[in-house]
Amino acid sequence: MKRIAILFLFTSVSTFSQSTDEEQLKAIYNQALTNSKCYGWLDHMSNKIGHRLSGSTGAEKAVEYTKAQMEVLGAFDKVYLQEVMVPKWIRGEKETAYIQNGKKKTDVAICALGGSVATSKKGVTAEVIEVQSLKELETLGTEKIKGKIVFFNRPMNPANVEAFLSYRDAGDQRRSGAKEAAKYGAVGTIVRSLNFRLDDFPHAGATSYGDLPKEQYIPTAAISTNGAEILSKQLKDNPGLKFFFKQSCYQEADVLSYNVIGEIKGSKTPDNIMVVGGHLDSWDLADGSHDDGAGCVQSMEVASIFKNIGYKPKNTIRVVLFMNEENGGKGGDKYQELSLKNNENHIFAMESDSGGFTPRGFSFEADDKSYAKIAKWKSLFEPYLIHVFAKGHSGSDIQDLSSKRIVKAGLRPDSQRYFDYHHAANDTFDAVNKRELELGAATMTSLIYLIDKYGI
Amino acid sequence: MKRIAILFLFTSVSTFSQSTDEEQLKAIYNQALTNSKCYGWLDHMSNKIGHRLSGSTGAEKAVEYTKAQMEVLGAFDKVYLQEVMVPKWIRGEKETAYIQNGKKKTDVAICALGGSVATSKKGVTAEVIEVQSLKELETLGTEKIKGKIVFFNRPMNPANVEAFLSYRDAGDQRRSGAKEAAKYGAVGTIVRSLNFRLDDFPHAGATSYGDLPKEQYIPTAAISTNGAEILSKQLKDNPGLKFFFKQSCYQEADVLSYNVIGEIKGSKTPDNIMVVGGHLDSWDLADGSHDDGAGCVQSMEVASIFKNIGYKPKNTIRVVLFMNEENGGKGGDKYQELSLKNNENHIFAMESDSGGFTPRGFSFEADDKSYAKIAKWKSLFEPYLIHVFAKGHSGSDIQDLSSKRIVKAGLRPDSQRYFDYHHAANDTFDAVNKRELELGAATMTSLIYLIDKYGI
Repeated sequence: MKRIAILFLFTSVSTFSQSTDEEQLKAIYNQALTNSKCYGWLDHMSNKIGHRLSGSTGAEKAVEYTKAQMEVLGAFDKVYLQEVMVPKWIRGEKETAYIQNGKKKTDVAICALGGSVATSKKGVTAEVIEVQSLKELETLGTEKIKGKIVFFNRPMNPANVEAFLSYRDAGDQRRSGAKEAAKYGAVGTIVRSLNFRLDDFPHAGATSYGDLPKEQYIPTAAISTNGAEILSKQLKDNPGLKFFFKQSCYQEADVLSYNVIGEIKGSKTPDNIMVVGGHLDSWDLADGSHDDGAGCVQSMEVASIFKNIGYKPKNTIRVVLFMNEENGGKGGDKYQELSLKNNENHIFAMESDSGGFTPRGFSFEADDKSYAKIAKWKSLFEPYLIHVFAKGHSGSDIQDLSSKRIVKAGLRPDSQRYFDYHHAANDTFDAVNKRELELGAATMTSLIYLIDKYGI
Repeated sequence: MKRIAILFLFTSVSTFSQSTDEEQLKAIYNQALTNSKCYGWLDHMSNKIGHRLSGSTGAEKAVEYTKAQMEVLGAFDKVYLQEVMVPKWIRGEKETAYIQNGKKKTDVAICALGGSVATSKKGVTAEVIEVQSLKELETLGTEKIKGKIVFFNRPMNPANVEAFLSYRDAGDQRRSGAKEAAKYGAVGTIVRSLNFRLDDFPHAGATSYGDLPKEQYIPTAAISTNGAEILSKQLKDNPGLKFFFKQSCYQEADVLSYNVIGEIKGSKTPDNIMVVGGHLDSWDLADGSHDDGAGCVQSMEVASIFKNIGYKPKNTIRVVLFMNEENGGKGGDKYQELSLKNNENHIFAMESDSGGFTPRGFSFEADDKSYAKIAKWKSLFEPYLIHVFAKGHSGSDIQDLSSKRIVKAGLRPDSQRYFDYHHAANDTFDAVNKRELELGAATMTSLIYLIDKYGI
């Protein structure tokens, strides 16, 4: 589009007449869009440090870097580390896989799922049985599954507008597919990547063997959506084809790592604690710019904005960068454990862990009264095109955080593109738009400002 | 993010109790997300045809392709072309430009602005005077401008949440900079690209010499934002540096081209016409996937969805792919001219020309009564996260369309990323997300369905 003066305004008629709040939100968004540090921090984390899988060198460096940046920021009363033991899973050599269809060999892109065991050094070769669900395993039974590779190929449902619903519904194949298929004697599982698009990226993510005896563990890998389409098509022509895959991943002993915490002491009620955070660890195929570098730098930005606009919170604000969300959740568990031990009173916690995309609003875990109070602030956010104040999941690292009375929230960015990048090799810095990232930080800061001022 | 079942729902409590409308919108969105053709059409337009600047081979091919696709779709009662004479501007050889700062030479990325004249074959070399606004020219006057290249370097204002406001406010430099600087004896103008980001893409777009005598025309080009930053910095150190640029663009005689129109005849009131469209032409540096391939295929998709859900509109629906929006607006003018000549009664017109990003809503040119009626449908759109029902600009091709009583609307997608791509070499197919494109088409279809059913 072009042609001359384009004059339209998203009219913002606020029914909430707190003009100081309107001004404060304006100052917050203005800071974020004109004077923020988050994009630069993310650039460093992504391009200078790289992936941050728990226990990796990158994770260590990210702890040091974010701690140092929070210290120089001058927005915190103290910055400290919280020790936590985390699992250390290592991918090893790059995985290989192909379809052997008679004489025709077709290479496909796979990656071992986090927590998976390796194949033997020679790899696994077996016939494939394609299924659409875990339930189907039961119907097929040991007779049809034993000795085979189970291929979970149910796509994410494109009909959901909210992409996370489709992720939730298709995710059991990745999380529990290997565990369930092993019970029927499968020798491995291949899982369609949790990605709406057809492309060549395999998407990592954790799998769990649950309480399966160790000797029954079978190797499991994600296959790119293009790879899944090819495999499925070839299986229709030749159900007897063979699939080969090889991976050398392994689990080492748990290692010491850290949650990184910056604390602004409350000026009036310092015993009331408000948490804002993301998770510092990422999967290892890329630098985790959306998942969850974005959430970390946005959380740090909250403190930076408060400093720049001169806002002194009444309650204690903690920016918490959790370790090990992706494959264990040990950072979140440790934070909760110490909070209970120290008798801390958390009144609010927010996590940003859905990507650095244009923010649309929040989902809340809150009692009805608190939710009703918060929902009244919705009009204040209208000028910033924030419109979702829903009840729902907050964030993996805070979901178990309990306190006398606590409201928990998740930032809800636009979800359409998230699964193009999620846990894959293309979750890189160039996939993050600076303005979208900044708008997310401003949106988080604005809600924290309001809750700090008015309570829950 | 990862960890187990993520359960949140954007609750959609509709106060509008037309359950058939709710069902119809659900069917529309479902079709768009599971069974649409628009992404495939765009793939062809972008990757098989390429740029579609008015008068180019690409524009011709796009006319043929979209007409043929509309014919085979089987959704229209007739598909036809509307003749229109359009300007033919040709970029010629790739432009070159550098800063000569003493002995140091720095190449920078530029592109001639659409409609600009060429430099001489040797190029232009001159001292540079940097300004922030057209108004500043007046203050400087002929004395300080004559013989120099004027460098317009006012950035797009990052503080606006709505990116188009910043585009509007910075756009005068591109549209009128050359015309105004010529009056003070400048030998050329260099304009900072209309792009929030710092990158190496020069962004094209039309310039106008207005009623300046032809002999006073001076060449004008856009410089990438990185180039603008470098030039500005070097000018601070050495205001006497020289800038060189060379471009060989030229204007040929107007040529015959076409608007492409598909028409579904209304089942009850066929004389009432509803238009939905985008513009088929694009700038020439890329394939114009967002601007405005997206709008064209979304408009075509409206007819496809109606066919698939079996909806027969009461009023006549015209899908109009306008030619020459970018550098003349002749397609829109011609459509309007023929509408008046044929005494047509348009009740509604909508354009999608703001990119194929996640839709947020609409902006309306409507009388208060019609606007109030339409605004009542807002709740029907909540499940689809559509929340902007604003008054404002509709679209360049329909803005002058007049009728007895007409409502005009523009689709309003999320605007944050648009100017990363707008008129630049990276406005390509890979920058468009399939789901975002489809959601836009569904949103357009839903509004057309409601207006068709209830009137304005």
